[in-house]
Amino acid sequence: MITVDEAFARIIAQKIELPVTELSLEEAVGKVLGEPIYADRDFPPYHRVTMDGIAIRYEAYQAGEDTFRVEGLQLAGAPAQTLTSKDECLEVMTGAILPKNTDTVIRYEDVSITERRGKRYAHILAAPKMRLQNVHQQGSDRRATDLLIPEGTILSPAEIAVAASVGKSSLKVAEAPRVAIISTGDELVEVTQTPLPHQIRKSNSYMLQAALREQGVTADVFHLADDKALLLNELSEKLKKYAVLVLSGGVSKGKADYIPEILQELGVEQLFHEVAQRPGKPFWFGKHAAGPVVFALPGNPVSTFVCYYKYIQPWLRTVLGAAPAWNLQAHLTTEVTFNPKLTYFLPVKIFITANGIWRAQPITIGGSGDFAGLLAADGFLELPPDQMKFSAGESFPLICFRG
Amino acid sequence: MITVDEAFARIIAQKIELPVTELSLEEAVGKVLGEPIYADRDFPPYHRVTMDGIAIRYEAYQAGEDTFRVEGLQLAGAPAQTLTSKDECLEVMTGAILPKNTDTVIRYEDVSITERRGKRYAHILAAPKMRLQNVHQQGSDRRATDLLIPEGTILSPAEIAVAASVGKSSLKVAEAPRVAIISTGDELVEVTQTPLPHQIRKSNSYMLQAALREQGVTADVFHLADDKALLLNELSEKLKKYAVLVLSGGVSKGKADYIPEILQELGVEQLFHEVAQRPGKPFWFGKHAAGPVVFALPGNPVSTFVCYYKYIQPWLRTVLGAAPAWNLQAHLTTEVTFNPKLTYFLPVKIFITANGIWRAQPITIGGSGDFAGLLAADGFLELPPDQMKFSAGESFPLICFRG
Repeated sequence: MITVDEAFARIIAQKIELPVTELSLEEAVGKVLGEPIYADRDFPPYHRVTMDGIAIRYEAYQAGEDTFRVEGLQLAGAPAQTLTSKDECLEVMTGAILPKNTDTVIRYEDVSITERRGKRYAHILAAPKMRLQNVHQQGSDRRATDLLIPEGTILSPAEIAVAASVGKSSLKVAEAPRVAIISTGDELVEVTQTPLPHQIRKSNSYMLQAALREQGVTADVFHLADDKALLLNELSEKLKKYAVLVLSGGVSKGKADYIPEILQELGVEQLFHEVAQRPGKPFWFGKHAAGPVVFALPGNPVSTFVCYYKYIQPWLRTVLGAAPAWNLQAHLTTEVTFNPKLTYFLPVKIFITANGIWRAQPITIGGSGDFAGLLAADGFLELPPDQMKFSAGESFPLICFRG
Repeated sequence: MITVDEAFARIIAQKIELPVTELSLEEAVGKVLGEPIYADRDFPPYHRVTMDGIAIRYEAYQAGEDTFRVEGLQLAGAPAQTLTSKDECLEVMTGAILPKNTDTVIRYEDVSITERRGKRYAHILAAPKMRLQNVHQQGSDRRATDLLIPEGTILSPAEIAVAASVGKSSLKVAEAPRVAIISTGDELVEVTQTPLPHQIRKSNSYMLQAALREQGVTADVFHLADDKALLLNELSEKLKKYAVLVLSGGVSKGKADYIPEILQELGVEQLFHEVAQRPGKPFWFGKHAAGPVVFALPGNPVSTFVCYYKYIQPWLRTVLGAAPAWNLQAHLTTEVTFNPKLTYFLPVKIFITANGIWRAQPITIGGSGDFAGLLAADGFLELPPDQMKFSAGESFPLICFRG
């Protein structure tokens, strides 16, 4: 039996080859960028007017001029006009290119515009503070050829906007691996069936499929009977077709728990079996020489849930090429004791105080079979194995599945 | 000009009618549940064995019996067997129904199994502590007909698992409104075009589309030229087809800023124009008597970004029927001063300390046009208007667009 940290390290060390694929900007959001994005021109690409008002030449104002005849209007989207006389001005609109021969914008609020004999004049009420006032200067944010977005970035709407602005209508992103979710357990029937008294409907597969979908990963779902010959045959097929197998059930030491034995018979090298944690202790993990990675999770729903969020989700993020997620922490609202020398994943509800402190209130559930108990929880607090008493106010790592 | 709080209140007060739709379990994750989900039977539905071992009758052990002949094997998925003699036992597997005439499970680790003359005997090594030990009792988590998941819940993988277990293969969810994203501004060209020196490519539309997609909302994207007749005509069409219009640009006081005037001409009642905030001050909001809600955002990319996350995202969540998101807070890493009497949305990068404190480091950006500056940010800290100095360590509400 190994520790949670050791199990985590062995999982994260497993790489798989993933092709890149090209998606439209809309589809790419939330995915991991598979190419670097560079600036094709300066940001902004021209001296950009940031206020509606008039554009003048600063030296004219410095030389004592405070009223300028309005020569014309520079709209956004129009080619740059040229100021013909430095004693005159051009009206300019936000987003427009700064007219040639001008270098300063004074907003409408700081000028008074009057008409005399069919001509318009702008009289300056508040002195411009400096040259290039109200001008977003060409290249001041980024320079052409600058690296804007490194490979491995998770694409938020901010990256999507920047990619659009440099002319990328599609983006290379890491293609999610093909995942097969395989449940076992002869007590399980289909969702659409009415179970007999000793049967229950499948739920782990749907939990896993939903959780993977939230990560942008599509998974196929299968159920296999607790039958050795059938398991051998079917799992052999799945290992040929999928890069990742996530199994649920059949990994304890019961009479029908054939999974570890069969996986090894099929050439999947066992990298560990049993982790010093509750729930989820019987977790089995291995890798096939031909590539596929196999997570064989315990069939108890809460165990499946914990193992997915603690191990599979961060592993997927890593193989897709992204940096680890933020390390959330939360403070226990009340004392908890847990005697076994196991890492304890405690279901908790989260409250954020007015001062921004994340508080974790333990949720009592009826063991690792009580997945309805998770409905009241937001995540799990990871309580370390070398401690038996966990005090109110102490903070621990948080695995969050909501919010 | 109204305050940010007043603008938020006026937006949240606008309801729109949304139909419910039915989605598969996989597709329903992340959506807002549009029906209550009840337990169809007890949770668990039978006395469920939680450890591999033997099942006995507790009174037999109490009466002094400590070795039980193994009568048979109760596998998961098989109908309940019946123990014929209370001095004997049945082997039982995790997940199985507890056999009739038994009430206690002793795990393999606590018994020693020996064979004599072809018969198997289990000798108890560690006394059972109580009746129903290692049994997850029928109905102990939930009772048949209990409300499991109320309407309005955002469906996490936990709810998906529970829905599957009660036989729901599809779920009623609130159908997202039809959204049209409409950019204006004659300086904008298509992503696939090479802009002239005074032009830039569209980016706000893609940002908005991506952000909406992350909320599970599909949006159609349009661009309209700064032409009054065309705007009147096209916006009139859009108001007939979409429940929500999100416009970007044309709401300031420039010569080509026709949007507020045209919207009112089309019967959209102005609920506010201008909010005491930076960036995003020129934000216009209104509602058409026939239903559609119109968010007309300033065209500066950072303004569009802030207004989406501050107003549109929470509004969508509300109209879909979900509770508000968690109120995140973060602590400034360094002092900030901001003099205008405006709410200041400060771009920040987030660091979470080992003790779970969210720290917000201000990101200097080149004004509301510097959307490349957002690449370094994780969100915005909302600094209130009635304060000019914001001290290091002080905490403020956080709007987060990553993590």
